[in-house]
Amino acid sequence: MNGTLFVNGFQAAGVAAGLKKNGKKDLGLIFSTVPAAAAGVFTRNRIQAAPVVLDRKRIETGAGRAIVINSGNANCCTGEQGMQNALAMAKAVADGLDLAVEQVLVASTGVIGEQLPIQKIQTAVPALLGALKPEGLSDLAEAIMTTDTVPKVVAGKSQLDGKGFHLAAVAKGAGMIRPDMATMLCFVISDIELPAMVMQTMLKAAVDRSFNRITVDGDMSTNDTVIFMANGASGVAAETREARQVVQSMLDDALLQLARLCVKDGEGATKLVEVRVNGAASDPYARSVADTVANSSLVKTALFGQDANWGRILAAAGRAGVPIDPARVDIYFDKVMMVKDGLGRGKPVEAQATAVLKKPEFVITIDLKMASGSASVLTCDFSIDYVKINADYRS
Amino acid sequence: MNGTLFVNGFQAAGVAAGLKKNGKKDLGLIFSTVPAAAAGVFTRNRIQAAPVVLDRKRIETGAGRAIVINSGNANCCTGEQGMQNALAMAKAVADGLDLAVEQVLVASTGVIGEQLPIQKIQTAVPALLGALKPEGLSDLAEAIMTTDTVPKVVAGKSQLDGKGFHLAAVAKGAGMIRPDMATMLCFVISDIELPAMVMQTMLKAAVDRSFNRITVDGDMSTNDTVIFMANGASGVAAETREARQVVQSMLDDALLQLARLCVKDGEGATKLVEVRVNGAASDPYARSVADTVANSSLVKTALFGQDANWGRILAAAGRAGVPIDPARVDIYFDKVMMVKDGLGRGKPVEAQATAVLKKPEFVITIDLKMASGSASVLTCDFSIDYVKINADYRS
Repeated sequence: MNGTLFVNGFQAAGVAAGLKKNGKKDLGLIFSTVPAAAAGVFTRNRIQAAPVVLDRKRIETGAGRAIVINSGNANCCTGEQGMQNALAMAKAVADGLDLAVEQVLVASTGVIGEQLPIQKIQTAVPALLGALKPEGLSDLAEAIMTTDTVPKVVAGKSQLDGKGFHLAAVAKGAGMIRPDMATMLCFVISDIELPAMVMQTMLKAAVDRSFNRITVDGDMSTNDTVIFMANGASGVAAETREARQVVQSMLDDALLQLARLCVKDGEGATKLVEVRVNGAASDPYARSVADTVANSSLVKTALFGQDANWGRILAAAGRAGVPIDPARVDIYFDKVMMVKDGLGRGKPVEAQATAVLKKPEFVITIDLKMASGSASVLTCDFSIDYVKINADYRS
Repeated sequence: MNGTLFVNGFQAAGVAAGLKKNGKKDLGLIFSTVPAAAAGVFTRNRIQAAPVVLDRKRIETGAGRAIVINSGNANCCTGEQGMQNALAMAKAVADGLDLAVEQVLVASTGVIGEQLPIQKIQTAVPALLGALKPEGLSDLAEAIMTTDTVPKVVAGKSQLDGKGFHLAAVAKGAGMIRPDMATMLCFVISDIELPAMVMQTMLKAAVDRSFNRITVDGDMSTNDTVIFMANGASGVAAETREARQVVQSMLDDALLQLARLCVKDGEGATKLVEVRVNGAASDPYARSVADTVANSSLVKTALFGQDANWGRILAAAGRAGVPIDPARVDIYFDKVMMVKDGLGRGKPVEAQATAVLKKPEFVITIDLKMASGSASVLTCDFSIDYVKINADYRS
């Protein structure tokens, strides 16, 4: 997907409201100039930020016109006042856009446990509204960054019955990412027409194939939010199963691209690594092994050190709590078979494997050779910079 | 416990066999000059090193006379040849000490997936036997170190019916430590007389109270081994329940001290932190929360950064998969109540909490205020040096 950020009937903006200490953009807005259907998928952490609690309820109506997002403060663990602030943030935007407050969704990302500086946000809303424009998603992408090093946007155009429609999406990721509702924030907009209930099913499927397959540090955020809005402004409606598959496939592509960007931009990450498990007794077993390997600190530091330390991979697989016969396991780095039937294949092969590990992207395949269960997870390495970033985050 | 390393009828040794590249001690031996009972607890990783497989079987007899241990190579993922090497290692010692080979236990620690340089070991065995001496446990403690920075030994003396007996223990820890069978290697010797089946129960209980409560990086080793040998050479037999409680309490103390030393010496660790969870719906729920917080990379990097980032603690607790009401949670750093009913108590309290975080040892208490379930886990911080150590381990 490599289109422009134009989506009929949608505008977006990103401005600096003074929430980030460095004066960068920290307040964003997505606005559909016409009524839109909305779907959402949220964190399963038992601790949920105020905007997540709010959006969960609002998304039940299946409609939404705007999303206002701030970075620099997660508005989480902020109690009743936090909820009042989330409502006030929505109201400031609703008033400015002449919408019912229920049509405005809210998202926040940043430090947990401090009250949102709501006055700064309210003061910045007029400028935010003034900055709304078609293709404004790139400004918004900047405004939602925290420890991300690059803004993350994707966009595409497709056709149904000879008529074009658009889909664009933006995400922020970096730390606190693990399979099972991964990115902190992702927003998808399209000018296709779709019923909200169908969108919800499609979004859930796309998230399972993308964000729920990535991991940076095994932590799960309190604020994870993926929202999908579709306003039908292209005049194209996806009514048949085939038409919906076209949209699903675009949505899948967009979210998978963003998910990969999130892992690649994981805090301190220098490598994007896919951990594939084949031959497990079942798919969930394969997933357990892939997750355990992808989240192992010892595996991830070895990846950072470009060390073909397959023993750590096997040891991590062994503690996943699923049946494994060590004498059957094969391990590949890309196409280099490093381990055959549980045994290393020696120094010459290790040299080939080390060459693979020097690449910025590669695949580790673990074949358990027991049955046909398989799974795949995207991870990154664990670097000195990860520790630096997270030890210094608030200071 | 602060006694000498003398235990009647036991000798130990540690020598350099050339397995470690730096020429340091890497081969150790414990020997009971008289018949001894033995018990063992081993890793639950599905991938188990050859010596673990061997010892599991041998320990079933409830007897053992010697343990030979090498560092520098884990003899894991080494297939049939690995098992032959473990057997050969036992045989070299058995021949030298004129024991049946079944009476010799084996342990290995170090790199996974490379064959043990068995000839180097066989060549070094005469020197190893020659170095055997009472109180030799301090040499052995050096010989089993890998990334440990200090040898870890404890010893004590106690009395039953006016007659003295001894207990001494040695461990190696550092990386790859998590609750659920934690230290890589620990050996306990005593001159008390005890039936092997009683020793097994006592050892399991002591391990649950110590090594199974510590975590360094969430990884579980393929080689974790705790062996307890008792030879009765003090002439004291623990036959009553009260007498056994005296021994149990000594064993508990020894293992808990060693477990604390292991966490304190965790790879790159600068802090020893106890995570206590109170008020959970049940003890296992409390344990899940304590484990999730104690293993969270985000929490551990914040500890390294001396950042009282309680939001990360609460977020980790929230993803433990157990019932939590965020509006009830209190969090303490030592006695400083940082969070009350899910809300931070502001900057002055944060300053007090930050002072606690600057200490080398402290307690984080999470009170869920739901019921009376409780648990406690020992962890350490996650430092830049952890990554350096583990990225460079094999190079």
